[in-house]
Amino acid sequence: MRFAAARLTDFTVNVLIAAGVEAAEATRLAGIMVWSDCVGRRNHGVKRLPIITERLSRDLFQSPFQPEFQQTSTATGVLNGNNGLGHLVAFEGMNHAIELARQAGIGVVAVYDSNFFGAGAYYVQQAAECDMIGVAMSNSPPIVAAHGGVKPVLGTNPFAFGAPRRNGRNMLLDMATSASAGSFIRQYAEEGKALPEGIAIDNRGRPLSNPAELSRGAILPFGGPKGWGLMLMVETLAGVLTGAGIGPGVKSMYKDFGDSGHNGHFFMAIDIERFLPLETWYERMEEMIALVCSSADNVSGQKVRIPGEVRWEALERSNREGIYLDDSTIAALSILAHDYDVIFKMP
Amino acid sequence: MRFAAARLTDFTVNVLIAAGVEAAEATRLAGIMVWSDCVGRRNHGVKRLPIITERLSRDLFQSPFQPEFQQTSTATGVLNGNNGLGHLVAFEGMNHAIELARQAGIGVVAVYDSNFFGAGAYYVQQAAECDMIGVAMSNSPPIVAAHGGVKPVLGTNPFAFGAPRRNGRNMLLDMATSASAGSFIRQYAEEGKALPEGIAIDNRGRPLSNPAELSRGAILPFGGPKGWGLMLMVETLAGVLTGAGIGPGVKSMYKDFGDSGHNGHFFMAIDIERFLPLETWYERMEEMIALVCSSADNVSGQKVRIPGEVRWEALERSNREGIYLDDSTIAALSILAHDYDVIFKMP
Repeated sequence: MRFAAARLTDFTVNVLIAAGVEAAEATRLAGIMVWSDCVGRRNHGVKRLPIITERLSRDLFQSPFQPEFQQTSTATGVLNGNNGLGHLVAFEGMNHAIELARQAGIGVVAVYDSNFFGAGAYYVQQAAECDMIGVAMSNSPPIVAAHGGVKPVLGTNPFAFGAPRRNGRNMLLDMATSASAGSFIRQYAEEGKALPEGIAIDNRGRPLSNPAELSRGAILPFGGPKGWGLMLMVETLAGVLTGAGIGPGVKSMYKDFGDSGHNGHFFMAIDIERFLPLETWYERMEEMIALVCSSADNVSGQKVRIPGEVRWEALERSNREGIYLDDSTIAALSILAHDYDVIFKMP
Repeated sequence: MRFAAARLTDFTVNVLIAAGVEAAEATRLAGIMVWSDCVGRRNHGVKRLPIITERLSRDLFQSPFQPEFQQTSTATGVLNGNNGLGHLVAFEGMNHAIELARQAGIGVVAVYDSNFFGAGAYYVQQAAECDMIGVAMSNSPPIVAAHGGVKPVLGTNPFAFGAPRRNGRNMLLDMATSASAGSFIRQYAEEGKALPEGIAIDNRGRPLSNPAELSRGAILPFGGPKGWGLMLMVETLAGVLTGAGIGPGVKSMYKDFGDSGHNGHFFMAIDIERFLPLETWYERMEEMIALVCSSADNVSGQKVRIPGEVRWEALERSNREGIYLDDSTIAALSILAHDYDVIFKMP
């Protein structure tokens, strides 16, 4: 079923407020979550509302949160998220990076004591909207094995990169550095599907196909040793450098109800106009994109896609036809509506 | 056969000087090339000396080069390499990034009109030696297809990341964003070996196994759409942002003798102490490394490796036993010795 974005946002705001989130924070958080739904990243959308309210009810987030930002040099800063909702801490972190970049040409903000931040694409889009290049990374709780290892040690450690285009359909690369995002594994489990090879291993390193058995195994890094190196880079920048939790020091929002997340994030913004005029940048971006898109095989009809394109197409469809929610999400939201005494109308 | 590093360096310096390179430049370049050999990256070592002298003889490099650096804000700058030897331009570029980072906490330098820069690991190691995190990227001539495409459009676009460790065996991630580096394909061709599946395709997108037929096909990005996204990111930062050549605007050192490389590079240095005390950084790095290394399977004995470890082991062996050169490289260097009237002694 498809729901109008505005209505879904209102509902989300109301549930969050009823669950104890301060109004301005609820509005911001709902905006970020519903954007994820609009661009088709449903695993980071309102589907997460039940677990967020569950954790709110156990006082596992601080709302309103008291961010403490310390600028540590012309272009750098450290943000103590003070256990705020991860999306809000991340939004604040990227805003500081953008501010620093306005002054210094580039800004880097290291964030600690945060929580799960949702889709990194949102934050690099923040930068791209300001005519900046954005980078966002986060560490996450350990469900991924090292390349050559057999136990989960690091998280799916997402890496996101954004760069503006003249048409506003900005390049948005947003990927787990694992062979699969945790949310996809949960989806496979929900749908009772077997995992393809190369996604996960058991505790002896053998291929694991039953997603329900992941608790005795681990996801693999993507792309062999190269993906492993990038995953370690994300842990180094978002974990080691920030002062956040490292590896098992980061807690799962789904499993650890005795502690907050202790996630760390790394945000960077680069002011394009310190390198070349914006108009030249746009021209050169389109030159590169035209070049790579022209390399598709006319016979097979397979297209070359630019990272983000699928998101923008999903957004247009969501704007036109509403946001698609699957039955289990609708059922979960209906329960929330009942629990928090908030109206949830079917479309 | 194994050669003492000092002797190989002297030989390289002498050949470069005889080929017209200014003495200080020859010393620097030889140092970078022989370092690559020492750490086991032979494809970026003295093996490249014949093609570099060949291009020098055709006036395709400027030596001495006249770098023009323009600081464009507190933390950013643009370096016009003025067609200098890529290694030297890159060395200069990273040095500027480090200088900017000393002042502003972070420094980014965009480089254009450069050439092939060798192993990115060298430049991120420059940063790591200054207690900084380093990032180095370069675009390169098109031999890689887009994900979903069938024609070569981008280069192997290397990405390198370095981070210091207390023991000096710094984390050095240095990877082509293609499924294989161009130099490995040449090696397969030289050795008459078939390419494994997933490395290259023909002009209809079918797996290509004969490395000699690569001219009618293309290498694939590594790791599917994620590797493709990273390759585009490298082209965006090292190509689009810098003002360098894009795609076919970058020329091959092996094939294009009518033009210089027009490569672009992107260098970044991050001053760790703007985020946390160096001692704390070292402790946290070792905590992460101990964690991931402990996750190996004791039964199989397979180890977890940190990016760079293999390099440091190779360096120790090279220091102990000399640098290994294969027969074809020795033969090529012997020809150079004859052509440039420089002594090349067998060990």
